[in-house]
Amino acid sequence: MHALDQALQLKPSGDAQLGHFVGQPHPAWANFIGPFGGITAAQMLQAVLLHPRCLGEPTTLTVNFCAAVADAPFRIDATPMRTNRSTQHWLITLSQADEVVITATAVTAVRRETWSGQNAPLPADLTPPEHVAAPDPRLTPPMAWLKQYELLPLVGYFPQWNGEESPDSLTRMWVRLREPRQLDALALTGICDVFFPRVFLRRATAVPAGTVSMTIYFHADAAELAAVGTDYLLCQAQGQRFKNGFFDQSALIWGRSGALLASTHQVVYYKS
Amino acid sequence: MHALDQALQLKPSGDAQLGHFVGQPHPAWANFIGPFGGITAAQMLQAVLLHPRCLGEPTTLTVNFCAAVADAPFRIDATPMRTNRSTQHWLITLSQADEVVITATAVTAVRRETWSGQNAPLPADLTPPEHVAAPDPRLTPPMAWLKQYELLPLVGYFPQWNGEESPDSLTRMWVRLREPRQLDALALTGICDVFFPRVFLRRATAVPAGTVSMTIYFHADAAELAAVGTDYLLCQAQGQRFKNGFFDQSALIWGRSGALLASTHQVVYYKS
Repeated sequence: MHALDQALQLKPSGDAQLGHFVGQPHPAWANFIGPFGGITAAQMLQAVLLHPRCLGEPTTLTVNFCAAVADAPFRIDATPMRTNRSTQHWLITLSQADEVVITATAVTAVRRETWSGQNAPLPADLTPPEHVAAPDPRLTPPMAWLKQYELLPLVGYFPQWNGEESPDSLTRMWVRLREPRQLDALALTGICDVFFPRVFLRRATAVPAGTVSMTIYFHADAAELAAVGTDYLLCQAQGQRFKNGFFDQSALIWGRSGALLASTHQVVYYKS
Repeated sequence: MHALDQALQLKPSGDAQLGHFVGQPHPAWANFIGPFGGITAAQMLQAVLLHPRCLGEPTTLTVNFCAAVADAPFRIDATPMRTNRSTQHWLITLSQADEVVITATAVTAVRRETWSGQNAPLPADLTPPEHVAAPDPRLTPPMAWLKQYELLPLVGYFPQWNGEESPDSLTRMWVRLREPRQLDALALTGICDVFFPRVFLRRATAVPAGTVSMTIYFHADAAELAAVGTDYLLCQAQGQRFKNGFFDQSALIWGRSGALLASTHQVVYYKS
């Protein structure tokens, strides 16, 4: 079983209709402290998708990282707070030792074909992933979760820690799971958190930093994601303002064909 | 009392420590159906700020619009889900007739001075608000809440409903409360929802549309917002992808000095 699917194994606890699940952090997704935020976000979404009353497909997900997830079993409770004809609003919490560690809200929806369009084009003149060299492994930190992805940087990869501040905080890279697996909303959720903290790039130094809140807007349905298959995604992130311990990052994830699959935003705590 | 502050009058209900409040929609903020989303978002945040245990200032707010708020009293419950040394995570619900109508999460934080920077500059060559003509009132829909704001369009104001689709969905406008009031996080929250649905601009026709989920990242603290006073804000919004009934909007709100005060994103339902 793929390491992503291993991490997404949640077991129903008690009455399945109540949306209680148990799971645990997976060593393949370990970060410097606690698990990779993208896998935690995917686990929160997984609880919604496993709920017997789930209506439709993921449309939005907001995950708030209240504290570090400990390396121990956790409980996820997914509750449909309001079910309309074609949309459903979810509250999800992850708890350990009776303390809330993560909160999340999600909207799932049954979507029907409508007029469609796009105003966020794939950047022009991208070097295809087949022609991008893998980065020098000495530039990639040693966290386990990073080994799950193939990251091919085009612009703004990890800084060289030479203390030369960058005026810019833009990163563009081709990304896919290193071990091939079909794209779906869960895999896409992980990829939405694949960017290192923008403050590292600005300051060219590693300062303590961690995502506080992350939002994903899913634009593609299961069929459109399945059509991407195991291909690379173009992932772009940009910091907007860094102020007194928090910065925001705005990111876009495209398929190679140019379709915007997800927009994702986060606020990140940093110390300096 | 300013119409904004009138709408933000929430009364504690029962034990103040429990964060239960009652309030009601205010006619000055009525939208086509139900109240303006920006005032509802501000009411959700107000419940956090009025909570006796509130720690620090607003850093993030995500509001999910599960159903239309009826023109009747409502109850707001604000619960601190996790309180850390300098951050606090909130769950907020608005209910009517024992049904959840709005859910929200927020993070408040005590922020300390750190290295700061910005990568989202104020657009260049802006015509100052003093030289921008007020729009033809025939182009502005008649909803009550719109009268609360002075909107001075630079780019992409309301379409003329002539059926000429626009390839673009960018709006830039100077905005302030028509009746002067000092800027704070609550007033800024309302302004974050001031943009009409991007799909109107693309299609040059009014289709049913409504915000499903909205996120605000607050970059400025109370002192920085107070320094803006009653001046105009430069508000910019752009649609990114419109697909099968939902589109996302990414927006930025600057003070005239160029400081990014908030980034705000939303997903909007549309029918077409």
